[in-house]
Amino acid sequence: MNIPVLTDILSANNLIAEQNRKLLDDHRIYMVNLLSSPGAGKTTFIEETIKRLDLAISVIEGDVASDVDAVRIKKLGIPVVQINTGGSCHLNAPMIQKALENLPLHKTDLIFIENVGNLICPAGYKLGENISLVMNSTTEGDDKILKYPGIFRVATSLIINKIDLLPYLDYSLEKINENFLKLNPQARIFPLSSKTGEGFDEWIKWIRTGVDNFCNKL
Amino acid sequence: MNIPVLTDILSANNLIAEQNRKLLDDHRIYMVNLLSSPGAGKTTFIEETIKRLDLAISVIEGDVASDVDAVRIKKLGIPVVQINTGGSCHLNAPMIQKALENLPLHKTDLIFIENVGNLICPAGYKLGENISLVMNSTTEGDDKILKYPGIFRVATSLIINKIDLLPYLDYSLEKINENFLKLNPQARIFPLSSKTGEGFDEWIKWIRTGVDNFCNKL
Repeated sequence: MNIPVLTDILSANNLIAEQNRKLLDDHRIYMVNLLSSPGAGKTTFIEETIKRLDLAISVIEGDVASDVDAVRIKKLGIPVVQINTGGSCHLNAPMIQKALENLPLHKTDLIFIENVGNLICPAGYKLGENISLVMNSTTEGDDKILKYPGIFRVATSLIINKIDLLPYLDYSLEKINENFLKLNPQARIFPLSSKTGEGFDEWIKWIRTGVDNFCNKL
Repeated sequence: MNIPVLTDILSANNLIAEQNRKLLDDHRIYMVNLLSSPGAGKTTFIEETIKRLDLAISVIEGDVASDVDAVRIKKLGIPVVQINTGGSCHLNAPMIQKALENLPLHKTDLIFIENVGNLICPAGYKLGENISLVMNSTTEGDDKILKYPGIFRVATSLIINKIDLLPYLDYSLEKINENFLKLNPQARIFPLSSKTGEGFDEWIKWIRTGVDNFCNKL
């Protein structure tokens, strides 16, 4: 066991995350780190957000393997970089640094990072993002906050996806809201469906305000 | 970066996994390592299997935090040990060694390990199991084999859970079968619903045969 090495890796990671942040500040670019289990619906959520948001958006896709998600985003005419971690269970700041070299920063307002599907490991790695969103899909059950508190604690907002399936599931929105706000009282919750579009108006308004406030402060 | 340290950890892990296997062989106990994303339905699947299988079963529950799943299993009158990894993204062999000390091995035929919900990290850690099952739920989408090949490659069987929700989803059983068998041609696939019980007969017959064959060989 070698905890000092892990500390060094995290320090090095955070240093590069700060460099990423500085580069993005210089370009007035807001960056969102999107986290969830595999299959919660991150890519569809990003697709639907892109369609509704009048901003120049780029996307960084993180996966252990494959370019399935990047191909989907590319079809929308959006600049996208696919990172294959090759086995690693999370993205890190150096991977993002490399990805940023391959995006048109001079004409980008907002970058979505779709992290590797994992509710544990990505929580410890800052990437240079302004905010992190954690997504829970209704089909995963309403006990995930209790089981994976680390990642929900660091979330700026909770996206509850797939609310169109609620009639077919034993899932309590009240329970998840209560457990989440106990852990993270400052955060916002957006229940929505990336399939039907229900709930998107509020989310789009919130993220748009976030980007505007960020630009005004710089 | 310190790859030699990781190698040492894995070697030490495998050594203890072999000790676990030896202990279980001595007691004629079959052990199953169940792997999936968070919320794929592992606990409900174990509950429904327990109800249908006329064997003395014990369960080891792995979670980052909480005892939600162990409480559910306990209600069935089954011996259960909850392991809280406290942040670690997978179970390891020493954790299982410790858990086995707390189970009634002299009156157990079969142990289910419910691993931490994660499609990446648990794949590298042997625990002393006879077989590993990977579960994909229909609500996660049919592209998970391509994105997380490592864990599907080591699976003895693939359990496709939540087939009762197929009418409400864009999920292709054909596509997942094809992608899985390309990666892992020897493995069996069991599409089923832990909610309705559909598909359980075949799975129960298969696991029962596996336990019987194991005992006959010892």
